[in-house]
Amino acid sequence: MINIQDNLHIVDNIIKTALAEDMPYGDATTACVIEGNPVSRAVFVAKQQGVVAGLDVAERVFKLLDAGIIFKKRVADGMRAEKGDAIAEVGGNTSAILKGERTALNFMQRLSGIATRTSQYCEKVKGLPVKITDTRKTTPGLRLLEKYAVKAGGGYNHRFSLSDGILIKDNHIKAAGGIKKAVELARGKAPHTARIEVETGTLEQVVEAVESGADIIMLDNMDTALMKQAVEIIGGRALIEASGNVSLDTVYEIALTGVDLISVGELTHSVKAMDISLKFIDDKSC
Amino acid sequence: MINIQDNLHIVDNIIKTALAEDMPYGDATTACVIEGNPVSRAVFVAKQQGVVAGLDVAERVFKLLDAGIIFKKRVADGMRAEKGDAIAEVGGNTSAILKGERTALNFMQRLSGIATRTSQYCEKVKGLPVKITDTRKTTPGLRLLEKYAVKAGGGYNHRFSLSDGILIKDNHIKAAGGIKKAVELARGKAPHTARIEVETGTLEQVVEAVESGADIIMLDNMDTALMKQAVEIIGGRALIEASGNVSLDTVYEIALTGVDLISVGELTHSVKAMDISLKFIDDKSC
Amino acid sequence: MINIQDNLHIVDNIIKTALAEDMPYGDATTACVIEGNPVSRAVFVAKQQGVVAGLDVAERVFKLLDAGIIFKKRVADGMRAEKGDAIAEVGGNTSAILKGERTALNFMQRLSGIATRTSQYCEKVKGLPVKITDTRKTTPGLRLLEKYAVKAGGGYNHRFSLSDGILIKDNHIKAAGGIKKAVELARGKAPHTARIEVETGTLEQVVEAVESGADIIMLDNMDTALMKQAVEIIGGRALIEASGNVSLDTVYEIALTGVDLISVGELTHSVKAMDISLKFIDDKSC
Amino acid sequence: MINIQDNLHIVDNIIKTALAEDMPYGDATTACVIEGNPVSRAVFVAKQQGVVAGLDVAERVFKLLDAGIIFKKRVADGMRAEKGDAIAEVGGNTSAILKGERTALNFMQRLSGIATRTSQYCEKVKGLPVKITDTRKTTPGLRLLEKYAVKAGGGYNHRFSLSDGILIKDNHIKAAGGIKKAVELARGKAPHTARIEVETGTLEQVVEAVESGADIIMLDNMDTALMKQAVEIIGGRALIEASGNVSLDTVYEIALTGVDLISVGELTHSVKAMDISLKFIDDKSC
Amino acid sequence: MINIQDNLHIVDNIIKTALAEDMPYGDATTACVIEGNPVSRAVFVAKQQGVVAGLDVAERVFKLLDAGIIFKKRVADGMRAEKGDAIAEVGGNTSAILKGERTALNFMQRLSGIATRTSQYCEKVKGLPVKITDTRKTTPGLRLLEKYAVKAGGGYNHRFSLSDGILIKDNHIKAAGGIKKAVELARGKAPHTARIEVETGTLEQVVEAVESGADIIMLDNMDTALMKQAVEIIGGRALIEASGNVSLDTVYEIALTGVDLISVGELTHSVKAMDISLKFIDDKSC
Amino acid sequence: MINIQDNLHIVDNIIKTALAEDMPYGDATTACVIEGNPVSRAVFVAKQQGVVAGLDVAERVFKLLDAGIIFKKRVADGMRAEKGDAIAEVGGNTSAILKGERTALNFMQRLSGIATRTSQYCEKVKGLPVKITDTRKTTPGLRLLEKYAVKAGGGYNHRFSLSDGILIKDNHIKAAGGIKKAVELARGKAPHTARIEVETGTLEQVVEAVESGADIIMLDNMDTALMKQAVEIIGGRALIEASGNVSLDTVYEIALTGVDLISVGELTHSVKAMDISLKFIDDKSC
Repeated sequence: MINIQDNLHIVDNIIKTALAEDMPYGDATTACVIEGNPVSRAVFVAKQQGVVAGLDVAERVFKLLDAGIIFKKRVADGMRAEKGDAIAEVGGNTSAILKGERTALNFMQRLSGIATRTSQYCEKVKGLPVKITDTRKTTPGLRLLEKYAVKAGGGYNHRFSLSDGILIKDNHIKAAGGIKKAVELARGKAPHTARIEVETGTLEQVVEAVESGADIIMLDNMDTALMKQAVEIIGGRALIEASGNVSLDTVYEIALTGVDLISVGELTHSVKAMDISLKFIDDKSC
Repeated sequence: MINIQDNLHIVDNIIKTALAEDMPYGDATTACVIEGNPVSRAVFVAKQQGVVAGLDVAERVFKLLDAGIIFKKRVADGMRAEKGDAIAEVGGNTSAILKGERTALNFMQRLSGIATRTSQYCEKVKGLPVKITDTRKTTPGLRLLEKYAVKAGGGYNHRFSLSDGILIKDNHIKAAGGIKKAVELARGKAPHTARIEVETGTLEQVVEAVESGADIIMLDNMDTALMKQAVEIIGGRALIEASGNVSLDTVYEIALTGVDLISVGELTHSVKAMDISLKFIDDKSC
Repeated sequence: MINIQDNLHIVDNIIKTALAEDMPYGDATTACVIEGNPVSRAVFVAKQQGVVAGLDVAERVFKLLDAGIIFKKRVADGMRAEKGDAIAEVGGNTSAILKGERTALNFMQRLSGIATRTSQYCEKVKGLPVKITDTRKTTPGLRLLEKYAVKAGGGYNHRFSLSDGILIKDNHIKAAGGIKKAVELARGKAPHTARIEVETGTLEQVVEAVESGADIIMLDNMDTALMKQAVEIIGGRALIEASGNVSLDTVYEIALTGVDLISVGELTHSVKAMDISLKFIDDKSC
Repeated sequence: MINIQDNLHIVDNIIKTALAEDMPYGDATTACVIEGNPVSRAVFVAKQQGVVAGLDVAERVFKLLDAGIIFKKRVADGMRAEKGDAIAEVGGNTSAILKGERTALNFMQRLSGIATRTSQYCEKVKGLPVKITDTRKTTPGLRLLEKYAVKAGGGYNHRFSLSDGILIKDNHIKAAGGIKKAVELARGKAPHTARIEVETGTLEQVVEAVESGADIIMLDNMDTALMKQAVEIIGGRALIEASGNVSLDTVYEIALTGVDLISVGELTHSVKAMDISLKFIDDKSC
Repeated sequence: MINIQDNLHIVDNIIKTALAEDMPYGDATTACVIEGNPVSRAVFVAKQQGVVAGLDVAERVFKLLDAGIIFKKRVADGMRAEKGDAIAEVGGNTSAILKGERTALNFMQRLSGIATRTSQYCEKVKGLPVKITDTRKTTPGLRLLEKYAVKAGGGYNHRFSLSDGILIKDNHIKAAGGIKKAVELARGKAPHTARIEVETGTLEQVVEAVESGADIIMLDNMDTALMKQAVEIIGGRALIEASGNVSLDTVYEIALTGVDLISVGELTHSVKAMDISLKFIDDKSC
Repeated sequence: MINIQDNLHIVDNIIKTALAEDMPYGDATTACVIEGNPVSRAVFVAKQQGVVAGLDVAERVFKLLDAGIIFKKRVADGMRAEKGDAIAEVGGNTSAILKGERTALNFMQRLSGIATRTSQYCEKVKGLPVKITDTRKTTPGLRLLEKYAVKAGGGYNHRFSLSDGILIKDNHIKAAGGIKKAVELARGKAPHTARIEVETGTLEQVVEAVESGADIIMLDNMDTALMKQAVEIIGGRALIEASGNVSLDTVYEIALTGVDLISVGELTHSVKAMDISLKFIDDKSC
């Protein structure tokens, strides 16, 4: 699984941008009100059930503000927390904790929201030979983190960017003059390390895609009856991805059609933040 | 209202980060499949009703990819689009349009989602002397854009960052040794241009906040009965902000208590993307 | 008070820019002349009386060059140093000390110059109920640091940027069609956390500003006789800021008019560096 | 002379940093108060006599905010302006002018202050075979611009950074074990394109420096009697630089000693901003 | 083929870094010696036969220095130039041309060197069903450009980075406990868009790789006899890549073994710059 | 000698750019295949004889990925390694080692290639009073590192950039109207710390350059007979640099002409990477 600690050369920049955005000229309230150098201890508490993701990001927020902050995880990313569970503790300089609180929560709540939603989709298709995947419909600037959260929730990643996967869509097909020609062009020029995926909307296109030798065939916005026919036509000659307005209500039925992958834009484009709060506690012995 | 065109020194960096994230090494599919330099014309179509926001950002995405792209708005940010409405047109180099499509949509769908949700809250309290405001619960890196979208939806902005507003919270109060002392410290040290807001959870705290001369008093997580009493106690001596798990179901009742402002975290932390798609059209005469 | 240690996410970038500017390709002299890895010890000495500011910045300059450098403050920012006083010691790798010397001094001398000048203004109005504030007339790129130095010298900060304070000037008034209209527009659209300040040049404008409900009224370039009248007219209904070519000679007389704040552009736009030098000493036991 | 237009790859970054610092979230006042898209015309007026520098920087500030702004210089950098002189005009979008005003002035006033002060030094030694030079005592982040302003004022540049000139100081000499050894090391290792300068404080050191073959000898903090002796001893065998607490009062006497160069730290470390203001005018026909 | 114009969001940063590196403080010689604003015209001339690459980068170097520069290509990237051929013309501001000359040449000579070398490899295996590919042994910071040059020379790209291709090497195999286990892990977790490649050094490993279902099998440092056996064993069940110290002398023999791809590190790690120079010409009518 | 450790404010940025280029979204293979947190130990082994350079850069690559990595040098930069020699060891987290391997090697192989080639040139002219220098024909973005490698190989650095040396070339001479005029302009305007070098192609130009008082005279593309005459004409009145298509075959003969410096573009523009590999070893006790 993608690891936050292994990607600090990217993640630190994201966090620094967030801190500069929230503190172009410091934390005015804390600077005025907190006197001396008090220390505090506080606990991140889940205020609803969910799957946690982003603890390493939160830790890094505090470490970048003050290397001396102690951050202790009580659960690991990918684990379910119940309402009321302590999911991590943070201790040290009070000002640093207050300054980092909102930024850390903004990351954790969003990433846990993604992980939680993903886990709900995975739950629906449990036991079926199908993978739930994300899309490129991520928040600009946060793709690495959001795709990490999808994995934490039990899902799988689709391509990361336009650079690392070949996905021939409607407009590429039109421009190239047909699926066959488009696949041929891609096969000839793309790195041999990339599989070639073709988007299809009709059974005719599915047939053409199979015959062109596409490695993966996306069934875009088909109903499940059509999907079943497509799966039969393909007959194992390509991986099959179902795509288009998938919901928690429809995912199981889609999975039953026999597709290999179901990609869900909602996982990252319409996130409901998981409710988490930071509670300061009196006992400061961390 | 905040203007995208006036903040390109910030917005361009956000867009360039998004483009680099989506194309660290170019658009593999387009590079392989699109031959020559064809031109296209495409229309952004609302696939559901909503309030549009982010058209200037979308335009800028394409302009940064290819200065020669034509982008024509059919509606303005802040206007309502019905399902099926064309909201903008883009014309020019096909490769540039294909490369910018997802990034432009990721911005527009998110910002329009925020504007749409904000407008629903505003609708609920229409005619009442209350403002719906955002919070700092924004997506890391996108705060300027998200606060812009709240305004486009008819809402108001709360402080932008920890640097530009004094908001004395629970933990500040504890650290300072009481509301009075905290307000005194803030009054003495903060820029005179900043108002001082105090978070309160009980009527005793409300009384103390009024007496300390706070400019704004936040009623945090109170029920509406308690809010009413607080509003009476304050009696016009401070602006009053209601805060804490406000929903579309409860906002009207809260507004009736007589508070001046209702801040809604959900506006930006739990965005449902507005469904918008880009359709290529055959008539290329832009 | 704003703290350097709490703003390293901003300050480190400022220092790194300064180091890259002074060493695009290393320190040629030190690289040629210093052989082996000698260690040294050196003392920052005040060569004139003044109020010190910037010690944490200087320390950070050396730490960024070599994490092993020892930096010991002998005074704290905001304290007065007499001619000949040692204000800090630095010990460790000789090359690192030589490389950081000028950059550290460039920061310290400038910030101490600002603190010193500010303290002279504060001294002049000592005992009077007035605050000396800075302006936005700061050195491009160094505003956070310069405003920190003003606080270290006993002054107060005005707004930090165009984003965090409403200051309606002459040209805004003209464009809006009068003070009343301008204040109304600002009251309607600005974050409720921001106070509204209006610049006035005549008593008529003062009256209009008071009636419009401005929170703060700036008396711009008025003589003290006129200021007195303005203060009387306002009669406590708004904070009052005197502004415009204030000098050490005139500040006391201005303070006597009863204004609440006197803003002084000179504090940051015409700084006389405090004379500080770094003396290497023979005793290397730090 | 260094040219601003030729260094936009550096200068644009400096300006963008300044704009982001002054507008992390836009210009709140202008956004609230200026309605529609009015245009304006305004004139930069000298409010005191001085030598102008920084017009190209000011122009670039506005162009980066709005490419459509018209900027017309009435004088050129390096020319003297009298009190009341219009030095440049700016026309176009009112919001853009208001947003850029302070940043443009912060650059122009500082750079013109440097040029003005430099010209006063040059005036004092007019006709004598000596050059006034700057030092590395510049504002962190602005060295290129400040050295440009020194040239605009009639002065000359010393080395730009630690990377591009060899200047063997006291501590280098100690570390190397004497001037001779230090010069030898530098001659052996430094790029052949760099001259070697040695700092001296006594006539013994001057003799040693000459004998070591130094290209330039700095007389550091000597009185003029000692300087004269040093000049005689050197006898044309090296360029001679006088350094150390030079003032407008002493520069002429120092020049008479026969030194080739007089370096003045004050030119950049203690700048008095030239008083310039931006006046909006009614006639908008630019 | 990857296009420079389509990747300016990456390429411009590379060029700006190069310009800042070559001109931290301007072009001293040109600033001193070129008076007024003369214009010039100059021609890039091939001083040896080769395949050209990098013209768009060179053009962009000049455009970023001065948007008014005219740049006319006489050949296109990927075309062969003979000794003495003019490959492009540049006209406009003399200073801008002089400042950009070396940086433009540093890019063009390197990229043309890569294209030239690649074309020599392609020539050797002309007519055989094999592709010459690059590796990740590129110059830090220039990978996009160097992979572009390989394509310009007729070669193909291998994966662009560690993020966009699965290549299981010796140490991965050891850590996972065998090829089968490693492939299984990768198949389970990697994006379905990525093919899985396994490095093998012995026929036993080849067998294991085939059986594990690897999509691509790399024959690492095998002699051609062994390669032939491996190709036979694999029997079309996977793509085959030959790798390891391939040279112009051995590439044909390797190609005859029947491998599909031959990756050549030398293409980018040991580049011989193509000899190109910029000649100023008297006729300035561009 | 330039030191990597002393220039981390530059070098770290170069490395971070390289890491982001190689891992925009992590190391897919390692993330999939390496389970748990295993540790490893590996040795950098020279696979051919050469002069090593870049060990500190390699160490920094790993430290930036994981501060806990141990890196032990077995040789120092500038030392010769024989085929099979271990030149450094790296130990710690297996994933970090795998992720940094290629980037570290890309730096080390290139820099060692430069050092090795430089040492071959130095060897050829051993005992003669001449220095081998580099040029500005370096890889964009890596000039500091490449010039460091030249020094590690026994060579000397020419100017680092257009900013830090005056080199009057053919086109400057034409524009200025002759060598004399050009030198005069440079002498008048350039920092006194810079020597003035003039490029010459004929004996007439050499005479003119000497008479103009140039500090350094470059003999560009002359044959050795002409060079000898030029050296005689100059007669010690200026440093002499031979330039233009110098090769290992011709350098000795050129050195015999009596020139002081021979600049070799090939040292950095046509680097043959030194063959170095990283071998994982079983004994993990580092």
